[in-house]
Amino acid sequence: MMPSSFPVVRLKPKANARAVRHGFPWVYDNEIVTDRRSRALSPGTLAVLEDSERTPMGVVATNPNSRIFCRMIDRDPTAQIDQAWFTAKLARALEMRARLYDQPFYRLIHAEADGLPGVVIDRFGDVAVVQPNAAWADVLLEPLVAALVEVTGVSTVLKNSAGRARSLEGLEDDSGVVVGTAPSAPVSVVMNGATYLADLTGGQKTGLYFDQRMNQRFAASLCKEAKVLDVFSHVGGFSLASLAAGATSALAVDGSAAALSLAEQGAEQGGVSDRFATRKGDAFDVLTALAEEGETFDVVICDPPAFAPSKPALEKGLRAYERIARLAAPLVREGGYLGLCSCSHAADLARFRGASTRGIGRAGRHAQLIHTGYAGPDHPLMPQLAESGYLKALFYRL
Amino acid sequence: MMPSSFPVVRLKPKANARAVRHGFPWVYDNEIVTDRRSRALSPGTLAVLEDSERTPMGVVATNPNSRIFCRMIDRDPTAQIDQAWFTAKLARALEMRARLYDQPFYRLIHAEADGLPGVVIDRFGDVAVVQPNAAWADVLLEPLVAALVEVTGVSTVLKNSAGRARSLEGLEDDSGVVVGTAPSAPVSVVMNGATYLADLTGGQKTGLYFDQRMNQRFAASLCKEAKVLDVFSHVGGFSLASLAAGATSALAVDGSAAALSLAEQGAEQGGVSDRFATRKGDAFDVLTALAEEGETFDVVICDPPAFAPSKPALEKGLRAYERIARLAAPLVREGGYLGLCSCSHAADLARFRGASTRGIGRAGRHAQLIHTGYAGPDHPLMPQLAESGYLKALFYRL
Repeated sequence: MMPSSFPVVRLKPKANARAVRHGFPWVYDNEIVTDRRSRALSPGTLAVLEDSERTPMGVVATNPNSRIFCRMIDRDPTAQIDQAWFTAKLARALEMRARLYDQPFYRLIHAEADGLPGVVIDRFGDVAVVQPNAAWADVLLEPLVAALVEVTGVSTVLKNSAGRARSLEGLEDDSGVVVGTAPSAPVSVVMNGATYLADLTGGQKTGLYFDQRMNQRFAASLCKEAKVLDVFSHVGGFSLASLAAGATSALAVDGSAAALSLAEQGAEQGGVSDRFATRKGDAFDVLTALAEEGETFDVVICDPPAFAPSKPALEKGLRAYERIARLAAPLVREGGYLGLCSCSHAADLARFRGASTRGIGRAGRHAQLIHTGYAGPDHPLMPQLAESGYLKALFYRL
Repeated sequence: MMPSSFPVVRLKPKANARAVRHGFPWVYDNEIVTDRRSRALSPGTLAVLEDSERTPMGVVATNPNSRIFCRMIDRDPTAQIDQAWFTAKLARALEMRARLYDQPFYRLIHAEADGLPGVVIDRFGDVAVVQPNAAWADVLLEPLVAALVEVTGVSTVLKNSAGRARSLEGLEDDSGVVVGTAPSAPVSVVMNGATYLADLTGGQKTGLYFDQRMNQRFAASLCKEAKVLDVFSHVGGFSLASLAAGATSALAVDGSAAALSLAEQGAEQGGVSDRFATRKGDAFDVLTALAEEGETFDVVICDPPAFAPSKPALEKGLRAYERIARLAAPLVREGGYLGLCSCSHAADLARFRGASTRGIGRAGRHAQLIHTGYAGPDHPLMPQLAESGYLKALFYRL
């Protein structure tokens, strides 16, 4: 084995080396022998991880400022982490997306499962948006972006460095243009026959959520000649898909005027604006108001932000999910459909389903569960982390 | 409240009346006050269920020969269970299927979740196949079938009364033609662009499994220009769908010559037989032999029978799932796809995923989990029984 130029970090004897050997991608700070040297590692430094017997286990990215002290980068402790290494990871990820999607609009890299821990890359045709949510990716952004341009041929690379994941890593917000010129207008994205507008510089996260594509397709299959309500609509994810599938009308509700404006522009471009309406407001308030107005719908879908982003927020989050279900169920006609989504890591499927089912019951309705969906295949999971698959979508018939 | 003509069965004080009130559909034999009268109830007798305070809870179907002593039929204790009652249940179920599917080929009634406990009805165009897997449905078969003809207009109704579910109810096998004439040849069914042949009188269960339709569609999306292996193929579920989606070749492996013959006829009718091959044999043996022959595939799918149909069989079943994964993974090319299915009630998602992931690891392969699928929406679940959702399909990239 070649001597490595990387510093060494070592597992404590009590650490679960077996889990790491079997594919678990993280080592927590309490599992590492910390001394002056390891504590002084600059965030993002690559190192060789050794077990407590000093056997090398692979190249890891370290961050003394994060609970996740090490992220496994390569199980070969002699690996060179250079542009060619990034190229191989990106080419492998691209092969799957190119097979699955006719058009180059997808999540290209979904962090650990795509071999680039903490890194998220969304692709919008010629534009890629990189979220380097772990320190090592900040440090190695240059070869990463060079490989990205090489593999995909994108002309523009944006860096989106805001959000909770980075703050957990002790990283600052720092967004901007890395390659090319930022698009001057929202980008058009066609999914499930609908046209969406993604604002890649001013919008939430990367401007569009690709993760709901399969759930939106399923919802759309229920929506022919249906009157549809899309709550927490963002840029019209479920409502525009339902109109493309033949819904009679769709009402999008969101708290953001900017998101609703993009939804309206998407409806315009997709030729469905005559059947589309928006209503700005707090979702709980609007659900209550619609019930007071005596409104009912054939299909209601609620896709709220993460109410339970972390374990301490779990109980409160589950009550919020239950409340959404309780307020939404009365708006569904007898025999109609209710789609409820959660993007909370902390609320697993059984808990989220329990809260949703309870809410429907408290509204005095009985339900069949007809479909359970997750994020699409451009959001792969490591099997070892599959429990935390964050996105869940439940479709009930009431 | 009208006085009911039904006999009365009563919950013991220790029984979980609250669960029944909140929608749980079953009462077990140890929760019922059993006396000479209740033990003498003829299997399938309708009764009024009372709680231990003698408050009526609904009409139930009783069976002293089953662990499930009562199945909730109607939460209105004064309900009349006649043809009109069946018509309402069937019409409601049909409304959803007609919305979801262009052609009348689907599971029309999926037992408890569709309001007809223990009753399964599959529809193949003008032919319906009824599985009355609970005693009450045997007793009330006549109004059930009359309503079925009324609601769907089918010309033929077959009764398929074989299998484990009936033996748990103490019911005998008793299959045959109830209405019309049995089809003289296998019925053609088009799903996901592929043509399948369903033998409704001689085949396994009802001759075709509708439950994998969405998983077959997902698998097909991976199969363009791919070399595909379909293990436990039955009549070609995954292989014919993959060929319809543009697979270069597909090999179907099954232990049943009759099933493979139907698969070949389906390939012929679908115009894909030049790319289709079959191999009869024990799946474990064939997987081992293919590895010895040095064969590899772009996509491998294994859809075995239930290895863990019941809790006592769980550990053994999980070992069998692990073994399937361990034997199948080496046949997948680097960067290819492995689909693993389980239709075992007893093996929940986490356990099945654990066994599958372990098997892949033991084959020396690393994997991303790209998709988790369940039975399609024509197989709805009661939310209270959702944990037992029997069909799970995991798609890995290796």
